[in-house]
Amino acid sequence: MFKLRMKMENLREVVEVVSTLVSEVKLSISKDGLEARAVDPSHVAMLVLKLHKAVFEEFTGEPTELGVDVEKLKEVLRLSKPGDVIDFQFDGKNRLVASLGRVTRQMAVVDPAGITDPKVPNVSPPASVTVKTEDLRQGIRGSESFTDHVTLTLDPTAFTMHSEGETDQLDLRIAKENLTKLEVKDPVKSMYPLDFFSAMVKSISAEDTTLHVGNEYPLKVEFAMSAGRGEGRYLLAPRVEED
Amino acid sequence: MFKLRMKMENLREVVEVVSTLVSEVKLSISKDGLEARAVDPSHVAMLVLKLHKAVFEEFTGEPTELGVDVEKLKEVLRLSKPGDVIDFQFDGKNRLVASLGRVTRQMAVVDPAGITDPKVPNVSPPASVTVKTEDLRQGIRGSESFTDHVTLTLDPTAFTMHSEGETDQLDLRIAKENLTKLEVKDPVKSMYPLDFFSAMVKSISAEDTTLHVGNEYPLKVEFAMSAGRGEGRYLLAPRVEED
Amino acid sequence: MFKLRMKMENLREVVEVVSTLVSEVKLSISKDGLEARAVDPSHVAMLVLKLHKAVFEEFTGEPTELGVDVEKLKEVLRLSKPGDVIDFQFDGKNRLVASLGRVTRQMAVVDPAGITDPKVPNVSPPASVTVKTEDLRQGIRGSESFTDHVTLTLDPTAFTMHSEGETDQLDLRIAKENLTKLEVKDPVKSMYPLDFFSAMVKSISAEDTTLHVGNEYPLKVEFAMSAGRGEGRYLLAPRVEED
Repeated sequence: MFKLRMKMENLREVVEVVSTLVSEVKLSISKDGLEARAVDPSHVAMLVLKLHKAVFEEFTGEPTELGVDVEKLKEVLRLSKPGDVIDFQFDGKNRLVASLGRVTRQMAVVDPAGITDPKVPNVSPPASVTVKTEDLRQGIRGSESFTDHVTLTLDPTAFTMHSEGETDQLDLRIAKENLTKLEVKDPVKSMYPLDFFSAMVKSISAEDTTLHVGNEYPLKVEFAMSAGRGEGRYLLAPRVEED
Repeated sequence: MFKLRMKMENLREVVEVVSTLVSEVKLSISKDGLEARAVDPSHVAMLVLKLHKAVFEEFTGEPTELGVDVEKLKEVLRLSKPGDVIDFQFDGKNRLVASLGRVTRQMAVVDPAGITDPKVPNVSPPASVTVKTEDLRQGIRGSESFTDHVTLTLDPTAFTMHSEGETDQLDLRIAKENLTKLEVKDPVKSMYPLDFFSAMVKSISAEDTTLHVGNEYPLKVEFAMSAGRGEGRYLLAPRVEED
Repeated sequence: MFKLRMKMENLREVVEVVSTLVSEVKLSISKDGLEARAVDPSHVAMLVLKLHKAVFEEFTGEPTELGVDVEKLKEVLRLSKPGDVIDFQFDGKNRLVASLGRVTRQMAVVDPAGITDPKVPNVSPPASVTVKTEDLRQGIRGSESFTDHVTLTLDPTAFTMHSEGETDQLDLRIAKENLTKLEVKDPVKSMYPLDFFSAMVKSISAEDTTLHVGNEYPLKVEFAMSAGRGEGRYLLAPRVEED
């Protein structure tokens, strides 16, 4: 049972990120903020997104875990316009009510027990790089027509994203001096499925994205929401090259 | 037989309203203005739209009734740009010619005898409310995913639009003090099909819309075109709740 | 084998014109500029587009003929933004590499021997007119719903484009005094397929288009790229009216 007031922009950011992976999401809400956790049905990708308590204009109630249909949150957003404030009220059972000015939208929630909870593994890739999100997007955009996977390489001099199809290739190479941060001891290299990597990167509104990479190791993608409002983390299983 | 000159903006307003209901429309044109009448094939909704003579930059000829394919009027609009003036010439038989600058578009008309003429019933619902059209649009937009009907309620304190699906609900409630006009003696309540109500409200460019409502009674929707250019009226049959 | 640097805007203009006719194009590239030649599979329409050497920011290498997949050039354009400069490098065999800042896109080329080379016939229609491209576009836009051919007529007083369907007609008539240029001795008239004529005119970014017309004779469409960067020529076979 809780009452929660937040700006539509903060809800929108949650919805955009979460909808890359799932149609139903498990939300943990308390006076300390909101946490969304999701794992895609094939268990290749998972997400933990945290919004700090500062994103709540108001909160009263007890810590609650609930499952929500992402499409219904999108509908609530469509009822709003930039700058709007949305009031949510949860009865502790099965009714979530969103109020926006003169409109009240009541929706059924989903039993959180029925939503797969990602067991977030403890992943610590040895190398990391912070890249302009827009650069990643450009490389992805140019690869989608001819391949379904990308190879990320970090060495002490540069970050490289390499895409390879039957006859075509693309390389995005950014030298150390053009990177915000590059932490590599030994060179690392890993291949990832392009569809998930693309969806993740496209959902990120932050200017910079940090990629943690190892050798044939899960990818950890980290990004911050602007103004310290929160942060997100994706994990993506590597695609192992067949011999 | 007539010659008629009008601004594209006025034709566009007619076309937008009429195309919500029908693909062919019966137009009555005389020196007093233009009247468009339409009834949807299922006879659930009908429309009477009047443009006063002030919307004619020029008119010569006799009063004429003709049937026109709405899609062809849309094509004439696509040939024009905002601010353009369109000259229509009707030969009294079967040829309507639209001239726009260097382009002349000649089209066959439809025998008006073949178009169903709405017998507009004398409907006088006991209560009425004048609402911002944008508020209605917001309520409709938020309901279309989970229901196919809406219930309008007027009582002396407020106007309410209620939508209800299997698990979800939406209420748009506007208190009397936020309404331009609310005329209710005894509370009234009626249910209407959402698809027609949505199409009607979306076609209205006026800022305010007046709804005349009774108990399980036809809805009368009235709107004015800006600058006193004309006015429109929709009628919509109620949807009676099954027991 | 060559290295070539050009602005994305120049490549974009080539791609837009060429993609109206073919999916693979034969390019002749040398220090004197670039020539693209294409003929549609039904041999009804052909194109010769020339970019002068001024469009090359840099060129080194020998004259080369190569075949390119137009879709891949579009992808290179999608990697760029207005104002970007693109570096192309061809290894003389089968690898074309496009570099845009941090991104390198390598693509297979097509054997030019496998692409039909238009044998451009020596066509000299007796009359010609220079028209605003936008006027042609308006006439085409208004005709596509009811016909698949247009008739062009030039006489000493005017240029006319006439479209005729079963019940509908459109005429675009521009009198001599409103035309940049009209060169006609004896009136000429010819009918052309609308789909090709439409695609050609829509691809032209020049403000003016020159049409060379004869009696039941191929159409020659000429246009210049702005700032003397190059010029293009389409040829289109007439559609002969059946008796």
